[in-house]
Amino acid sequence: MPDDANRMAQGAERAAVAESIRRHPARKFRDRHFDLEDDRLAVEEPLEIRLGGRRFTLTMRTPGNDEELVAGFLLAEGFIESRADLGEIRRLRGSKGEPDPNAVDVILNVPAASLRQRLKRNFTISSSCGVCGKTSIEAIQRRIAPIAARLTIAPGAILELAPMMRHAQAVFAATGGLHAAALFVAAGAPARANGARRNGRAAAPATGVQLKVLREDVGRHNAVDKVVGHALMNGMLPLGAAIMAVSGRLSFEIVQKAAAGGVPVLAAVSAPSSLAVELAEEVGITLVGFLRDGTFNLYCHPDRIGG
Amino acid sequence: MPDDANRMAQGAERAAVAESIRRHPARKFRDRHFDLEDDRLAVEEPLEIRLGGRRFTLTMRTPGNDEELVAGFLLAEGFIESRADLGEIRRLRGSKGEPDPNAVDVILNVPAASLRQRLKRNFTISSSCGVCGKTSIEAIQRRIAPIAARLTIAPGAILELAPMMRHAQAVFAATGGLHAAALFVAAGAPARANGARRNGRAAAPATGVQLKVLREDVGRHNAVDKVVGHALMNGMLPLGAAIMAVSGRLSFEIVQKAAAGGVPVLAAVSAPSSLAVELAEEVGITLVGFLRDGTFNLYCHPDRIGG
Repeated sequence: MPDDANRMAQGAERAAVAESIRRHPARKFRDRHFDLEDDRLAVEEPLEIRLGGRRFTLTMRTPGNDEELVAGFLLAEGFIESRADLGEIRRLRGSKGEPDPNAVDVILNVPAASLRQRLKRNFTISSSCGVCGKTSIEAIQRRIAPIAARLTIAPGAILELAPMMRHAQAVFAATGGLHAAALFVAAGAPARANGARRNGRAAAPATGVQLKVLREDVGRHNAVDKVVGHALMNGMLPLGAAIMAVSGRLSFEIVQKAAAGGVPVLAAVSAPSSLAVELAEEVGITLVGFLRDGTFNLYCHPDRIGG
Repeated sequence: MPDDANRMAQGAERAAVAESIRRHPARKFRDRHFDLEDDRLAVEEPLEIRLGGRRFTLTMRTPGNDEELVAGFLLAEGFIESRADLGEIRRLRGSKGEPDPNAVDVILNVPAASLRQRLKRNFTISSSCGVCGKTSIEAIQRRIAPIAARLTIAPGAILELAPMMRHAQAVFAATGGLHAAALFVAAGAPARANGARRNGRAAAPATGVQLKVLREDVGRHNAVDKVVGHALMNGMLPLGAAIMAVSGRLSFEIVQKAAAGGVPVLAAVSAPSSLAVELAEEVGITLVGFLRDGTFNLYCHPDRIGG
């Protein structure tokens, strides 16, 4: 990135941190009495997303990196498949022409007929055998390519993810109220899988990781949408050489979003759900849980962790 | 409750706990090597909710207490306002007549015209000034009565909530993957506000609390829907004498659900968001956060905590 672009990006990140915290007085009960102190709250505000001018959805999120959030969300839901499909994300404007902080309009670069087809494919649920975890997994498999990336990471490098993510969480430290998602790569490697890995020669296990991007939000799913959206907008998809780490727990939805980005290794500080493990197993993601205090659990596709 | 009904209810609770855990082998990395052990995962499965036979929504949840989940969800979203509106919740049946574990059909007791009116009221967002936290709060205020219940709780009784909830979380202890929501009342009091409190005479602060119901789910919002749905189905609304406690964080959505149940005191183990505090302030809920290690923060309506 040229220096100017780099400075602008850093400025944007600082602005995002500033708009994600709000001060509020709180009575703090300590040692049997109350003290009135200022507390820092994680900001939660609605974002209205329009598609081609029409109201599409309203989501609660922490302001900052809204374009990334929208891009990641549309990818995970199957509306877009690449940066080229995304077209443009415009900020709506108020009556005086001022940009609306809580509303965007998305112009898709997808012909109407193929969009209808994609959505039909996503939302068709087999009605013959009822709804269950298996049908939910099949719905994802119909539109996401199996993840076959062959990277290997040493267990010691996995252990580094949690402290590195915490260190980067400037905002979390201040409020305790924000979830985080982060993308890492093996130290020195690009996030996108390179040719050597693609054609099947397994490299030596990576013994170190490097943070590429971290995003925070009151909603864990939003933080994940933001990092995947960042990757999409910066030509990093599929993320075949990346490791994603998330604070808190792992649900089906989080694995679905990681899978849409092509992430081969997904690690969380806390517990995965049953369906998160099943989906990871089916799509080919190495799933790590309870990553804390120098330990972790490995639930499926263990071959990517070794050395 | 008669003894037979009581035994049936206890049996149902045990079944709910059993279906909410699944065993899965995991490689556990401890002291620089892997051990293969059985892990207990919190079950996550889709639930399809139909309204009058038509597909309405699909939500990921932990099986168990599905009827309560549906009742609480429909109350929070403004589809129903009381037990009488609910009509019936039927389990869908498969081709051989067997009950479908993941699909229910809801027959509402609400005339179509008044349902349309309710939904229009809920989803109308002021387009003149754009979407923001304030418009989201106003949308809730249009359909939820201000919470004016006058109970008072001693700080020591608030401190009891977290250990009592943890103690009751049999499933949480086993998986680490389930959120909890619980309703408490001042020891000896009914959950529904009584006459003495309604007509304004403030009683002495309650110095102890009693657990009425606890529900767990992979989704915090589902756990809250289940306890509010339980209250609705058992004639306990509005919950003017209840204290709700939730594991984890407090978002706008959680406060919205508590407000729909008429809960005057809401406490969470972790941080509230900015919009959670603003909504609680506007609707009249006493909001407690960071309830842990013998301390807590009080964000608004502090008059209910004292003594």
